[in-house]
Order: sequence, then structure tokens, then C-alpha cells
Amino acid sequence: MNRFGLKFSVTTFGESHGKAIGCIVDGVPSGVEIDESYIQNEIDKRKPGLTKFATQRKESDTVQILSGVFEGVSTGAPIALVIFNENQKSNDYENIKSLFRPSHADFTYFKKYGVRDYRGGGRSSARETAARVAAGAIAKKLLEKFNIKIKSGIFAIGCIEAKNLDFEYAKTSEIFALDKLQETAQKEAILRAKEDKDSIGGCVFIKALNVPAGLGEPLYNKLDASLASALMGINGVKAVEIGEGVNASKLRGSQNNDQMDKNGFVTNHAGGILGGISTGADIDLKVHFKPTPSIFLEQQTQNEHNESVKFSMKGRHDPCIAVRGSIVANAMVSLVIADMLLLNASATMKNLKKIYEKN
Amino acid sequence: MNRFGLKFSVTTFGESHGKAIGCIVDGVPSGVEIDESYIQNEIDKRKPGLTKFATQRKESDTVQILSGVFEGVSTGAPIALVIFNENQKSNDYENIKSLFRPSHADFTYFKKYGVRDYRGGGRSSARETAARVAAGAIAKKLLEKFNIKIKSGIFAIGCIEAKNLDFEYAKTSEIFALDKLQETAQKEAILRAKEDKDSIGGCVFIKALNVPAGLGEPLYNKLDASLASALMGINGVKAVEIGEGVNASKLRGSQNNDQMDKNGFVTNHAGGILGGISTGADIDLKVHFKPTPSIFLEQQTQNEHNESVKFSMKGRHDPCIAVRGSIVANAMVSLVIADMLLLNASATMKNLKKIYEKN
Amino acid sequence: MNRFGLKFSVTTFGESHGKAIGCIVDGVPSGVEIDESYIQNEIDKRKPGLTKFATQRKESDTVQILSGVFEGVSTGAPIALVIFNENQKSNDYENIKSLFRPSHADFTYFKKYGVRDYRGGGRSSARETAARVAAGAIAKKLLEKFNIKIKSGIFAIGCIEAKNLDFEYAKTSEIFALDKLQETAQKEAILRAKEDKDSIGGCVFIKALNVPAGLGEPLYNKLDASLASALMGINGVKAVEIGEGVNASKLRGSQNNDQMDKNGFVTNHAGGILGGISTGADIDLKVHFKPTPSIFLEQQTQNEHNESVKFSMKGRHDPCIAVRGSIVANAMVSLVIADMLLLNASATMKNLKKIYEKN
Amino acid sequence: MNRFGLKFSVTTFGESHGKAIGCIVDGVPSGVEIDESYIQNEIDKRKPGLTKFATQRKESDTVQILSGVFEGVSTGAPIALVIFNENQKSNDYENIKSLFRPSHADFTYFKKYGVRDYRGGGRSSARETAARVAAGAIAKKLLEKFNIKIKSGIFAIGCIEAKNLDFEYAKTSEIFALDKLQETAQKEAILRAKEDKDSIGGCVFIKALNVPAGLGEPLYNKLDASLASALMGINGVKAVEIGEGVNASKLRGSQNNDQMDKNGFVTNHAGGILGGISTGADIDLKVHFKPTPSIFLEQQTQNEHNESVKFSMKGRHDPCIAVRGSIVANAMVSLVIADMLLLNASATMKNLKKIYEKN
Repeated sequence: MNRFGLKFSVTTFGESHGKAIGCIVDGVPSGVEIDESYIQNEIDKRKPGLTKFATQRKESDTVQILSGVFEGVSTGAPIALVIFNENQKSNDYENIKSLFRPSHADFTYFKKYGVRDYRGGGRSSARETAARVAAGAIAKKLLEKFNIKIKSGIFAIGCIEAKNLDFEYAKTSEIFALDKLQETAQKEAILRAKEDKDSIGGCVFIKALNVPAGLGEPLYNKLDASLASALMGINGVKAVEIGEGVNASKLRGSQNNDQMDKNGFVTNHAGGILGGISTGADIDLKVHFKPTPSIFLEQQTQNEHNESVKFSMKGRHDPCIAVRGSIVANAMVSLVIADMLLLNASATMKNLKKIYEKN
Repeated sequence: MNRFGLKFSVTTFGESHGKAIGCIVDGVPSGVEIDESYIQNEIDKRKPGLTKFATQRKESDTVQILSGVFEGVSTGAPIALVIFNENQKSNDYENIKSLFRPSHADFTYFKKYGVRDYRGGGRSSARETAARVAAGAIAKKLLEKFNIKIKSGIFAIGCIEAKNLDFEYAKTSEIFALDKLQETAQKEAILRAKEDKDSIGGCVFIKALNVPAGLGEPLYNKLDASLASALMGINGVKAVEIGEGVNASKLRGSQNNDQMDKNGFVTNHAGGILGGISTGADIDLKVHFKPTPSIFLEQQTQNEHNESVKFSMKGRHDPCIAVRGSIVANAMVSLVIADMLLLNASATMKNLKKIYEKN
Repeated sequence: MNRFGLKFSVTTFGESHGKAIGCIVDGVPSGVEIDESYIQNEIDKRKPGLTKFATQRKESDTVQILSGVFEGVSTGAPIALVIFNENQKSNDYENIKSLFRPSHADFTYFKKYGVRDYRGGGRSSARETAARVAAGAIAKKLLEKFNIKIKSGIFAIGCIEAKNLDFEYAKTSEIFALDKLQETAQKEAILRAKEDKDSIGGCVFIKALNVPAGLGEPLYNKLDASLASALMGINGVKAVEIGEGVNASKLRGSQNNDQMDKNGFVTNHAGGILGGISTGADIDLKVHFKPTPSIFLEQQTQNEHNESVKFSMKGRHDPCIAVRGSIVANAMVSLVIADMLLLNASATMKNLKKIYEKN
Repeated sequence: MNRFGLKFSVTTFGESHGKAIGCIVDGVPSGVEIDESYIQNEIDKRKPGLTKFATQRKESDTVQILSGVFEGVSTGAPIALVIFNENQKSNDYENIKSLFRPSHADFTYFKKYGVRDYRGGGRSSARETAARVAAGAIAKKLLEKFNIKIKSGIFAIGCIEAKNLDFEYAKTSEIFALDKLQETAQKEAILRAKEDKDSIGGCVFIKALNVPAGLGEPLYNKLDASLASALMGINGVKAVEIGEGVNASKLRGSQNNDQMDKNGFVTNHAGGILGGISTGADIDLKVHFKPTPSIFLEQQTQNEHNESVKFSMKGRHDPCIAVRGSIVANAMVSLVIADMLLLNASATMKNLKKIYEKN
């Protein structure tokens, strides 16, 4: 079950230390302009090794389009994207071969499948998210045509929260910080965790603009349900909020209701979604990432033979996965909205008549 | 897209004031003992009109099994469940026929479909959730055989939170309160909102016990992603948390990691899921419901002709949808876990050999 | 897996002698005019007991719309259809309770599920096809708007084949015969089989007119593949042909190729489908039904205890299932084409722009 | 919609003259031994250029496993397979760039997508079937463990039919002929068509042995329906028959029924499937391929500007696509049966208990 999306769908493959990772993006309408450089640019955003706030591991991550694009334009055929893994050395992982790293997926994959590719987490590695970002780039090219924009950035590192959301600033920040005034403290929190051989959690804010009203497939592929699935499924995410989110449960109806006037919604507590369908207002999402479980402090765990063992992690790891995770979350939201745009195309006879009726 | 689940799937139908609501539960293995009285009992839990904390609307909600069960046992055929609507009077809704109730789905359904069944919200009514609860009852009968239990209750009403989780107590509480010591204050918060012609939000806690390790279909039908989708898709839900949830984003790795010893996990910050797969530990979930938008204070809204209008709601409505919502959330979790149990059956050759090899 | 179709989908339920049969039709665009009488009229076509060429069993088969239609128009919500079984007497089946009727599905259902509803075949009964016809009626209402017509009739009974296809005549024929000149001989073949306590096979021809070019989802939901699945899945069907069908394997390319001139295809050996996509020409299909296995001659079979037993069938059965099967086949083709019409809506950016671009 | 299969699923990509073709095989249980050489061997069977009965085009077709296999064993992760296209020269196709080759998919792809990759048919090329064969090889490795065998060969070339089915002989025949006595005449028919600048149709017979009783998901993923879809979806297939097939429509029930004794079925007119579920008897299938539309005689067609044009095909083409098509058909049947084996794993509580109950 490595497929995501119903009409605009992505099937991913690949392990951290296998030959390659990649995906097949299916259902892309013909006529979308797609070039490798655009996709490459998106992938580069989540590339490790760029700053001291991310892992120092080097991955060149060069994406290739294998199919589905002809003379620069999508043909309607599936688009296969592949990134070959350059560094397949897995020596680092010999010492963890038979033990379960705490709070990683080692234990659960072993329980599920009986075997596991222990090299760098294998399939459960966050490396797979490069394929999501690549696919998301294609979704973005589609959304662009309808002026739909997906913006994102770091809302909080640990307890240090943005007071202001500046998505333009976030693009230039080394940690994609939304609030310049909090950025320094947020960076410090990351570096302090790193110095302590520890890691730290964080929260990502995503805003989708210009999403037309009417997207979302009730009752079981609602826009909010699909976004929740897409985001909760990212490595390390433990909570998803829409609009007022957790806070909505603390409010009264008179506080949380979005009244309307003739111009539309006066407020947007709903975060752009009512009854699982987009209202046309901004879609506001918060995604909470746990601290990466890869810390350098000694930990206690179990091995495959049910023995207790002490263990210290080696290698290079992100001290705060929320930072690069924000790029992945952005991609997942792009994919969901592209899918919903396509699914909604046949919602009404009026739409169908526009397509099939001859003038 | 009114279907939920991949193998153990539910397709629901019905509107608030239509002839009937119901569902088809497909993929139920043969050999599950199913009787109407058990399903009825589950449905009765979410029935309105029972206490002053819920709407006083009377619905007898009698469920019928139309197919798929023979001599008290599932046959492997689809199980159709139907609840006929007794009270189809829709006079109450004449006055809202052409306007959009604030923070309801009226506006978005109209934008999506161009037409809408305005009677009581039509398809977007919470009444549809009775079908989910009925389907969930069948899932529970399946889970019971493997000693899997799904427990739930009210964690918070507004800002008043439980300090203690007593799932047995919750069963007997009029508001399904998990903490007897907070129950009075929580009830008062609801009644005060009601007196003020207002409503209030709330938070539901769900705990799944004895879920075997290994459930969840990486990478895009992860257990956590599917739970998030199932729960965020319930009417009025705006946030979903797993394990530490939002709090995980505030912690360091050393605080959030679940170390292991030879007996298994020492802690359970993960809430029973790692890498999207169950660990065997309790699955802990929090679901945040907004206050119902149905309040009796005068509100301002828009009508179908883009005019601003004042408006006051009539009829009977739950002052706190989280209370009855907890039963729905419990059902949705049951459905997800039943589905994952079935999906996982073919995860390994070892499993397949158990099934197909002749001794 | 009781669902058919991807976007315009049908989920059916019900057993021959259970409380009811029916279906949920999901994905119907809003704005289709639907009334019970139209659906009833379609169902009546396959109703038994009308002529001596069909079983004399009486079924009133009254369909009810339970949801999804408001003020005579589809709302975009799922449409549930139900037909309550009036005659649930199952005494006739006591004698076959523990044995497997030859060439029926009794044996395979028992092998698959370990239990079976032996009354009249339970779920495997052709009675379920009434739900398909009901769903097909809704598809037809959609197709009508685009002037797409699905015509059908009896091509052959046993070896007696039509030489001429008169779909208008077929509508009035008791056996839906396409060729008036062969009708008498075809009727006689049925009656002779009946007199001999035997049954006879037959072939149905279906022609879909005015299907726009471009329908079909390559490469794995091709129009021809989906039609083959839909038709082969009808009770008793053992072969499906498209265009030249079996004969194509006997021809040379120069004979089978459809050359084109500026007005389009000069011939239609392809039967309206190339590369799995509709060409705009007529879609021509042949569906071959086996003789019903319900014959009154003594037969030898096995019972649930692996013993050989002699056995004679009782009750009333169609001597030729192709006759009523033609109505079912027509419905299935209608469903496939409606689904493909919806799926194709998002095939191109050009289509999407028609829908989403504001003027 | 480039995915096939529900649980054991294959998503393919690639065009005839693009960078690569390949697929992602998802749902493969962990613990299947898989090596590239086995897959390569299967692919080589359909490789062109081997005999004078196939196209002389040279394709080395080297398959690579990119993921999902670790230390020679499947891990449960998706298995990506890729074959890079060595010969991407598309000069041969400049002259057909703007015209529609008769009875090819050029016209329909253009009508559907508005653009097309004209090089060698692009996505609609039979070259894509190499990916099916590669995926089928993995299915075969799974089926082997349960002693399930899928055998196939050429039944007829044009009107020259096998009188005897020798699947062992077929393996060694240059045209996979099932009947040595007919082989010479069949070969001659192919060569004569080739000499005449023409092509010829053919029929493939497939037999699946040792398929356990109980496979197939009623009512809409029946084994026969899924096989029909899988086979009709292969390039050039125009008819599919199961068991008696077309002939069943000509028989009486007393001739077509398979009576049983205590040892099982006495005959197998059903071709191993009743009610859409396997009986345990051999599954017998016939697949009818049209003559390849690529002939060297002058033909008349239309171009993209709706003009009539004369046209002669160049390049190298199979005179009879049934020959290599038989390998593809075999692969598709393997994939369907593997999928059904997995889907059936959760059909009964008895199966689930075997998996989840602790001893």
C-alpha cells in the first residue's frame, strides 16, 4: 500500500540504502508543463547537508524523469521519477543490525514482516520523502495554472512559537522560520539540543491560498480527512490541526463560528474547510513533528533475541526533523489538493456538460 | 466517495430527513457472530434525547440487518444495515432553505453541487454517523475474537480536562466523562453554554488495547494516517493527536523516545504506533471537536443570492457534539483496526503458508 | 468486494431469500433527473414470470430510492436503492441444504467461506442482478443527457444466430430477439430444452451508440478491459467478444484493420475501441451465456460430507438465462460507460480549465 | 490508471521510445525469494529479435530491481523494476508524426489527451508489456511456493488450431506452439502473411494448475471477471473465453454441467471457475489476438488535420502478436491469481485465527 491519492496518485518505492528511490505519478492531466529542473529545485529544498541545522550527510539527489513527459509537456501517461542513491555504504548500520533503535520503526517493521532492511531504516527512512517532494512538484505545476499556492514554514521549535506568519521570509530562512523575531531563539533551541546530543520537536504551519470552494469528496474522502491522512503519514508527525484545531475544543460556538456577510466569510476559524469541503478561504494547517528519535545519548533497547541492550547511535542526523519536514508537508498538501481538484471535476452535470457538450 | 476502509469497508448513505440512512459493510470474514440487538445497543449509545446534555430530538433509530448474516453468523457476503427515518418533517427548515447557516456545510455543499438538500443539513448532518456506529458494531464483534478492545470517553469539555482516565466510569456517565472528579464541572460547562443559547467544544480520548504489533500498511495506509483520516472526517473534528500528540513537538528526543528492555517498551509516548505500524502497546488518541455551530444566538450570514441576512436558529441541538461524538470516534477506530487486521493477513509468506499449506 | 466502478460506482448487497437486495450508487453527479418509475421500468424488463420463456416465479420487485435524490434530482450524495424480497420462503431448498448443485456456485462458496446461505443460491443467485439493473437505470439517465444509447438483444439461442440486428424489434420480442426471422426458431429451441427438462445457452449482442471518442483509462482500466470484467462477471457468462472478437484471431491485418478517410473510420472491425479507448464509432459486444445449470434431469453430485449423491432439482427456473441476462448485460455496459465518462473528465488541462477557470 | 491488482498490485510506466519502462510491484508478502536472473529469464521469453516469427528489432531489455528485495528476499516493501530503453532513436517515426496509423491507438490517444508521444506508439506500445512480464515473474515466484503453475502456448494461428495441448512442447517451440503436429502449418501461416506484407491473428491457451478452491472475490472482483479484464487489456486482444467459452452458449445444461462424485468434478466445462470462485480444477482460458495492425501494405488514413492520406508503414514488426502475446497473457494470469491468493487470506475467521491466535 505504497500509493497515495485517488485520481492524481503517487506510488513510491525505495529504501534509504537501496539502489534508488522514486515514484510513479499517475493521473496527471495532459498539458502540464513539466521540467526536471523545477522538480530538482523542490527536492533541493529538503536536501540535507546545507546548514548546521540539518544532518551533514551529503546526498546529491538528482532526479530523472523516466516517462510521461514529451517535449516538455505531460502526455497523460504515468510520470516515473527516480533518484539513484549514490552513497549506498551501509557499514554504519552493522552495529544496529539486530537491535531496535528506540522510537524508530525497526521494531514494528520486524514484527510486521519478519525481516527488515536494517540499513538506515530501510523503507521507513525519511529518505523516502524525497519521492513525495518530487511528486509534489508536479502537483504544484498543476495548481499554479489555477493560481493555487501552498505556503509553509516553521511555526514552532520546541516551545518557541512564531507570533507572526511571514511565508516570504520563511523561504529565505535556514530553518524556514515564519517569524524573523523568533528565528534566533528557534535556531538556538536546535543547536542546544544538538550540543546535548539530543533532538527537538517542532511545528509546521501550512497555508493553501486560492483553493476554489467545493473541493473535497464527502463523506470519506473529505478534504480535511485526506489532509490529516497525508500529514499524519509523514515520518515523525504526531498531531494535525485544521483552522482553530485543538483550540476549537476549548471555544464556544459563538466564538468559533464564522459568520458571513454578502462578501463571504468574516472570519476563518474553520481553516477553510466546512463539512469536509473547501470554503474558498485560506486552508490553515498545523503539523506537529516529534523530535527525531536519532539521538546520540546512550539509550536502552531490545534486540531481535529479546535481550536488553545498551546502545549509542552513530552517524549524522537532523537535530530537528520539522525543518526539512516542512518541505514534505508542503508537498503532501499540494498532492491532496491536486487530487481533489481532479476528483471534483465530475461532481456536477454542469461540469460534465462543459466538457462533453459540443457547441 | 462514501466508502471507508480498504478490505473491511463501509459505504454509507442517507440524509438527515430522507427516507433512511444506512450502510453496506463489505469484507467481513465469514464466521463472525452478529445479531441486531448488539448493533442496536451500540447505536443506542449515541441516540439523542436521553439526557439534558444532548438534543431533545426523539429518534427511535431501529436498525435492521438486510443481508450478509445467515443463522446468526456472517457469510462473507456484504452486510447491509438500514435505519428508517421516522420523523421526516422538514417544516423546521423552510426558513433556512435559502441561507447558509454559519459554520455549517450548507455553503460548501451548495458551492460543490449547485443543489442541496437543506433539510437538517441533508447528507452533511451528523445523523449519518449512526451508520458509522452500526458498522463499527460489526467491527467490534470481529475485534472481540482477538481480545482487542476500543475504549473511549470525554477528556475535556471546553478547558476542563480530565486528570484521570477511567474508561469504566465513562460508560455510566451521562456525558461519558472519563474523570468523575471533573464530571460535575464539565456538565456545568455544557449547561451554561446551553443556557446562554451557545455551544461548547470538547475533547475525546480513545484507547485501543491488545492491538497486535504489526498492523498498519506503510507507507500510505499507515495506521496513524488512517486513524487521522477516520477521525478528522467526523463532523466537527478539527484536530487529531496520537500519543504525545501536539506535546511531542515541544519535547526533546530524550524525553519523547520510548526505550525498551527485554519485556518491551518502558514508556509509550508514541501512543502505540511507530513508523505507521502498531507496536503492541496501547493506542492513545485525542480527538478535538469544535462547538456545534448550531447556536440560538442571532447570527449574520449570506443567502443563496449573495445577500447578507440576520438569522436565528430554531429546533433542538446538542450543546456539545463531543459527547455523542465520542461514540462515533470509538466506532471509527474500531473500523480502522478491523481493516488493518484484515489487510495485514497477507503481509508475510509465513501467514500465507498457515492458510494455504495442507498439513 | 461487492463494489463495481471507480468514480460512478455501485456497491450491491442481498441474497436470493434474504430480507432485501439493493445497492448504493455513488459518484452520481448532482443534477441528474431521477425518478423511481424510470428505475422500476428497467427492473421490470428482467422480471421473471412474464413469459413462458422465463421462470414462472413471481417477484413484484418494487424498487425504492432511499437517499441521494431530492425534489427529483440527484444531489451528489450516494443513491441507495432497495428491493424488499416478498417471498422469503425457503422450504424448497431444504433438500439441497447440504449438497452442491452441479455447476452452481454452492461448492465454491462453501470452499471459500466455510458457511453458505443455501437458500436459492444465497448471494450467488442471479437475483442480485436486479440491483445491477436498478443502478444501470441511473447510469442510463446520465448517458441520455449526452445522447449515448446502449442497445441490446438476443443474438443467438444455442446455434440459432441472428442474421440481422434490429434493436427496435428486440424491445418488443418476448425473448428480446434481434432478428424477427430467427425468433421463432430461437423460441422453439428454448421450449424444446424446457420440455426436455433441460436448459440452453445463448448469446447477447450489445451496441453502444454515440459514445464520445476518448473514453477509457489506459493502461489498466481500459474501456475494453472494464467492459470484459463487467460482462464476464455476470452470472453464467463464459466469453466476451469485442468488435470482430474471436474472429479477429482468424483474420489478417489487411482484413481486420479499420482504414480511415477524412470523415473517420471506414470500417469498424475494432468494435469502437482502439488501445483501450473509444474511437467514437459504435461499441459492439457479444456476451456468451452458458445454459443455466438448473435443469430438472437427474444429476449426480457431492454433498458437504464428500459423499456422492443423486439429485433432481425442483422449483422454477429460466430455461435460458441469456434472455433476462441481456437486460443485465445492457445495465453493466451502461455503468461502465458512465464511469468512464466521469473518469475522463480530468484527462486534460483543457477540460480542467473549462471547469475551474473564471471568465 | 496505470495500476492493476488490488493487494498484489502493479503500477507500470514508460513509453516505447522514452528513457525507460518499468513498474512498482506492491503488496508482495515478505519472504519471497527474488532474484534478477529469474525475472530476466521471463522477460527474455517475450524478447523480440529471436526468431523470424517475431520482429527483428533488437532490445537487450535488461531488468534491474531498484527496491524491495534485501539479501535475496522480499521485505514487504514495494519492488521497483526498471528496464532502460537502449535504442531511443525515433527517426523512424517522423513520417507518422501527424497521422493516425490505422487500427493503432494513435487516433484515440490524440482524441483523449490532445497530445501524443508518436514515437512507436508511445505509451500504447506493446513494449510496455515487458513490465507486465517482469511483474508476473514475481507473482510466479510466489505461486511456486504453493505449487501453482501457469502454463500457456499458441492454440491457433489464423484458422489453424491445435488438436492437442502439450505445454511442455510449447516451451521449446519457436512460436510456443502447443501442438507439434500443427506447428509447421502455423509457422507457415505466419511467414506467408509476412511475405505478403501482412499480419495474422492468433489464439493463446492458458492453463492454471493447482489453484486452490476458493479464490475470487464475489461479486465484482470475481476470478473470471478479473481474468477477463487482465487479458482483454493486453494490446490486441479482442475476445476472452473461459472453459467452454463461446461454445457454452451453444450447449444445453445437460451437456455443459459438471457433475460431481465423491472425488470432485467429473468434467470441467466450467474451466475451473463457478460463481466467480475457483473450483480447484484447472483454469482454462483462451485469449484471441487480432493481427497486428502494423502491416506494410499501403493503407489509407487520416492525419491530425482531418485530411485523408495514403501511408506505408516502415520499420520492423511482429507478423503475429499472439506469439509474444502468449508470454504476456501468462504473466497477467499469474498476477491475477497471486492477487486473489492474497485477497482471500482474510475471507474467514478461521484464516484470521490461524494468523493472529497465539498458541
